[in-house]
Amino acid sequence: MFEIDPAFHATSHPLGDLALSHVRLHADARFPWIVLIPRILGARELEDLAPGERDVLMDEVLRAGGAARAVAEALGRPAAKLNVGQLGNITPQLHVHVIARRNDDAAWPAPVWGFGTAEAYAPKALEAAQAAARMALGL
Amino acid sequence: MFEIDPAFHATSHPLGDLALSHVRLHADARFPWIVLIPRILGARELEDLAPGERDVLMDEVLRAGGAARAVAEALGRPAAKLNVGQLGNITPQLHVHVIARRNDDAAWPAPVWGFGTAEAYAPKALEAAQAAARMALGL
Repeated sequence: MFEIDPAFHATSHPLGDLALSHVRLHADARFPWIVLIPRILGARELEDLAPGERDVLMDEVLRAGGAARAVAEALGRPAAKLNVGQLGNITPQLHVHVIARRNDDAAWPAPVWGFGTAEAYAPKALEAAQAAARMALGL
Repeated sequence: MFEIDPAFHATSHPLGDLALSHVRLHADARFPWIVLIPRILGARELEDLAPGERDVLMDEVLRAGGAARAVAEALGRPAAKLNVGQLGNITPQLHVHVIARRNDDAAWPAPVWGFGTAEAYAPKALEAAQAAARMALGL
């Protein structure tokens, strides 16, 4: 039975489920950041998805981009760029990061992964971010 | 008319063209690293591709993963993990990085982007890497 890696519980907040992926808001107020976790047992690489699943994932990456933009707007920092990454060097369970970037964000123009220390959301900002992401995703 | 950003000429070697993307070998002998550049005028984000183009790109990401694995084998350092990234924070023209990783590579487990300084391929290693990538890609 599919379960998400416990590492995600510690570092992100649940948003809901799309057709293929469980969707989470990464717990770092520095960056509007959505994580997609395809609910496919044992998958670690894109290669481990069936072709039809990969096309669904691509669609969900686009939707996560819209959600990251919506979070950015809700926090008063509209996005200038999206970054998409599928790494899994630390948590091997297949997942895709979709992050809204600005040229005045903490890490710009470097990638966000491994950059500095995550900052927790203030409760109201977290509520606004989750609501904006869920609305954008239709969740 | 579509042209690749000159920045790619300085940092990578051409491999050929797939249905959607121009394909290059990133000029850094530390990492087997393929770059896909969809030949779509003005595209900067995945959102700028038509849905059918995005599915082709996903297929080409999978093929680039096979090519990165083939380069890794040809260099005697078989891959343990693939990393995929679409950033564009520095060179905005839409492109996707596909990199073969190992837990003994220079940057592990950090992402490769912006990590240290690229190392040029020795001529014979470059020849072997390009040949392996082209064979894997059918180019």
